[in-house]
Amino acid sequence: MSGLWLALIALLVAWSLGAAAEGPQQEANKKAVIAFYEAAINQKDFEAASKYLGPRYVQHNPNAPDGPEGLKAFLGFLKEKFPNAKSEIKRVFAEGDYVILHVHAVREPGTRGSAIVDIFKLENGKVVEHWDVVQPIPEKAANTNGMF
Amino acid sequence: MSGLWLALIALLVAWSLGAAAEGPQQEANKKAVIAFYEAAINQKDFEAASKYLGPRYVQHNPNAPDGPEGLKAFLGFLKEKFPNAKSEIKRVFAEGDYVILHVHAVREPGTRGSAIVDIFKLENGKVVEHWDVVQPIPEKAANTNGMF
Repeated sequence: MSGLWLALIALLVAWSLGAAAEGPQQEANKKAVIAFYEAAINQKDFEAASKYLGPRYVQHNPNAPDGPEGLKAFLGFLKEKFPNAKSEIKRVFAEGDYVILHVHAVREPGTRGSAIVDIFKLENGKVVEHWDVVQPIPEKAANTNGMF
Repeated sequence: MSGLWLALIALLVAWSLGAAAEGPQQEANKKAVIAFYEAAINQKDFEAASKYLGPRYVQHNPNAPDGPEGLKAFLGFLKEKFPNAKSEIKRVFAEGDYVILHVHAVREPGTRGSAIVDIFKLENGKVVEHWDVVQPIPEKAANTNGMF
């Protein structure tokens, strides 16, 4: 069998396996977003978090002002009002330029907190855009599976 | 160069390109979830939607009862109370067994509606588990970028 055929078959196998479901860029993006999230939301350290930001930070969370300055203001608010706020990342997905986090956020220890999905867009490994959806976890649920 | 080397190089190229960022299973999963969503949420047609369900439907939405029967009840509720409810899928992501939708859901035409992220787990191309996070779109926002 010629080398070309072998190469073609290897490509097809790699693709069909979905073993290549994530390339190294997606893996690097996941690591960057997890580190950014930890620095920003858990450490509330804007300087540390800003290392992971690209040349802009387009904010879609309706409660946060746009840009890096908006993030800085939000982290200042968190640090002052909810210094013990903790967010636990439950699931991480990546596709293309996007990283998606499924998060359990608790602003005051001992409270139920909120379920959040954050979507980050990255360029050259840096965070440039953010969307999220936030829902307080209700006291009662119609099923016993939990929100995560 | 031996065929084995060519094959190895082809594998590495495929992986590093991230061109293989989605395998055919992830593409099929996306199509199944989009069709499921359209049948369930927009058509409110449980019979049509149930074709895309696997042997179970584990529900994490705290307002919906567990299982296929819970989905059937929810779609019945939608059809009766919000027959004109429409959901527009804004973004679709897939990784591994998961498909993630970023959705603008409007229950009554002309209202702002909600931002939703739905996460579906699939097995053998069928939907078996669902999480979501739902946030009403506020009238005013701290930035002009919109929630999508």
